[in-house]
Amino acid sequence: MTQASLRAQKLDFSPIRKLVPLALKAKSRGIKIYHLNIGQPDIESPKIFLDKVRSFKKKVVAYEQSGGNQALRQSLCRYYQKVGLRINDNDMVVTHGGSEALWMAFFILLNPGEECLTLEPFYTNYTAFSQTAGVKLKTVPTYLKDDFQLPPLKEIEKAVSRKTKAVIITNPSNPTGAVYPKEMLKELVDFCVKRKIFIITDETYREFIYDNQETVSLLSFKKAEQITVLADSLSKRYSLCGARLGVLVSKNKQIVEAALKIAQARLAVATIEQEAAVHLHRVPQGYFSQVKKEYQTRRDVLMKGLSKIPGVKFNQPQGAFYLIAELPVKNAEDFCKFMLRDFNYQDETVMVAPAEGFYGTPGLGRNQVRIAYVLNSRNVKKACGLLKMGLERYSLRQK
Amino acid sequence: MTQASLRAQKLDFSPIRKLVPLALKAKSRGIKIYHLNIGQPDIESPKIFLDKVRSFKKKVVAYEQSGGNQALRQSLCRYYQKVGLRINDNDMVVTHGGSEALWMAFFILLNPGEECLTLEPFYTNYTAFSQTAGVKLKTVPTYLKDDFQLPPLKEIEKAVSRKTKAVIITNPSNPTGAVYPKEMLKELVDFCVKRKIFIITDETYREFIYDNQETVSLLSFKKAEQITVLADSLSKRYSLCGARLGVLVSKNKQIVEAALKIAQARLAVATIEQEAAVHLHRVPQGYFSQVKKEYQTRRDVLMKGLSKIPGVKFNQPQGAFYLIAELPVKNAEDFCKFMLRDFNYQDETVMVAPAEGFYGTPGLGRNQVRIAYVLNSRNVKKACGLLKMGLERYSLRQK
Repeated sequence: MTQASLRAQKLDFSPIRKLVPLALKAKSRGIKIYHLNIGQPDIESPKIFLDKVRSFKKKVVAYEQSGGNQALRQSLCRYYQKVGLRINDNDMVVTHGGSEALWMAFFILLNPGEECLTLEPFYTNYTAFSQTAGVKLKTVPTYLKDDFQLPPLKEIEKAVSRKTKAVIITNPSNPTGAVYPKEMLKELVDFCVKRKIFIITDETYREFIYDNQETVSLLSFKKAEQITVLADSLSKRYSLCGARLGVLVSKNKQIVEAALKIAQARLAVATIEQEAAVHLHRVPQGYFSQVKKEYQTRRDVLMKGLSKIPGVKFNQPQGAFYLIAELPVKNAEDFCKFMLRDFNYQDETVMVAPAEGFYGTPGLGRNQVRIAYVLNSRNVKKACGLLKMGLERYSLRQK
Repeated sequence: MTQASLRAQKLDFSPIRKLVPLALKAKSRGIKIYHLNIGQPDIESPKIFLDKVRSFKKKVVAYEQSGGNQALRQSLCRYYQKVGLRINDNDMVVTHGGSEALWMAFFILLNPGEECLTLEPFYTNYTAFSQTAGVKLKTVPTYLKDDFQLPPLKEIEKAVSRKTKAVIITNPSNPTGAVYPKEMLKELVDFCVKRKIFIITDETYREFIYDNQETVSLLSFKKAEQITVLADSLSKRYSLCGARLGVLVSKNKQIVEAALKIAQARLAVATIEQEAAVHLHRVPQGYFSQVKKEYQTRRDVLMKGLSKIPGVKFNQPQGAFYLIAELPVKNAEDFCKFMLRDFNYQDETVMVAPAEGFYGTPGLGRNQVRIAYVLNSRNVKKACGLLKMGLERYSLRQK
């Protein structure tokens, strides 16, 4: 039989979603699942967005401009102004979620066979984006014991080769929740400017910073403007994951022009969501502080819950809404499957994401999971209880 | 300065959309433009869809399943049943418009450097899809004098090399409006089965067939099931271009699995549109017959209008809503720019798409344009008048 391409055969299912078939089966058996596997917050989407959707007046759902709805792009400029960035509406292209912006960045900045550096664990879908772009993702490890902080610059320097054309940074980090300090980022930026290496900066979680930490956008480093591409998303900021709205931003005209050419080939992003998002810059600061407070509470509940489970280690996330937990098991994916297939307590179980797929180095992260604290404190607490029981039963089964 | 990738530098703007900046400028001068450059129908989207959008109840716009909303997939199965195809819900992946389905097909079926055959003129965005997938698009010419009909099989055979891994066919054809007869398609399919060449079949315009012609889906050839990938779209069928809903369909499990892996990496397609689309299979046959009748009238008005312009040749489209017209000019793109920049009659002008970008062979189609008869008959007639005047003035200017 004719075979699919080798590159298609090499693709993996996403570790965040690969166990969905097992979850669906569990649900069909009447099991309630606490979903801590995916960054799908339960926070309500802004009313200002939903109202616009519900009052969509047009009779024809027509194509939008390829680069994005003009009013939406202006609204995004206002948002960036609020966070201290001077972005013009022609510095950006609206994308099918942050995902498409990331894929575009890989495709535009790197030739096939060139290398993009990242820290591991990294956002697992970088694997598929780089694979589909024919780019090699090379990783520099970060460690749970260091709360997954940026490694010293010399570690990154060591990983740079003649083929290194870009670095991709997620700050705050998914999957670790690490937030990188300005001084270290500055060092990295200076290095990239000197070595002429592009920077892809994924700042999806900009708003989610705890313990009075601060975060800085890599686009704010003026000297690096021409080498920096920001991939941004409305999914998490406004709890609009299903709206699939993202944006690629750069001050480098060649890059934005290439993004627009790709955008024209796929025609446009969904019209209704773009129109509905036009007033999101009006969402008051209070919305974010409230959401932030809520997540910080959930994080604390999660850390407290995990600390009660023997043998579990985890980092203290300072941003985003994930943490990495090391479990007292050999193979976390096997444990995750067990939780969906074989375990339940009073018809409830919990789903987390096996972390191995967030690493590039084979074998790393095999006993780790990524936990998304996207449910309310009561449910996070319940999920921790289920995890504890699950680990106990799983360990008995292994004996 | 650090340069973007070579492949990004090689991309072109879409010939359908590249003149948009000129059009925007004309509009800002108060000029009304008749848009015959883009397949954006003025037909109303089905009420059943708009009502569902307006009554979207959920408070969180959450991620949908990566492979698509389950009810939507079932609705699509019912639709396919109506057109005589037996498709199961696990034979498909819902995509960001037909565009993503097409890109996925290139990526999944072909390795970088392999060749995909198509007829020229072809849907221009195949260029960008194949370029981003690293695939070579090789063309077999079709001609205006033959109404752009399928060439004899031996012409296609001649173009096949050891690197040919797939053929892509658009039926009914965009940009020519040609509809391919069943017998010739069967010959092509038999050839592909024998030579183990995949078939990508783009059937976006399935519903738009005139003069009591019939069309056949390549997925209906049972023996070719395992080599066939259908890229489909709701954009034209239901006048929902801005909903960005498409689907990749195949009976080959390896292909659908690869598509699902890519789908997981980009998370999901917009939630609201998918929910709104779940009842589209209920749109009555009468809707299509009415729309078809309307387009046939527009086509006839267009052909009549064009036949009054000296020196203009064109084919008789039997499907879709495009035709290719050869103009009495050397460079049709230059003429299109003239129409937007220098011409107006009573503050009105017309925009069509230069056809050169729909050809793979350099130089072909340079004096041709693609005209989309997506406006009502009155406007199509007006546009023909403007085209006639524009050509007269342009020709004076050239002297």
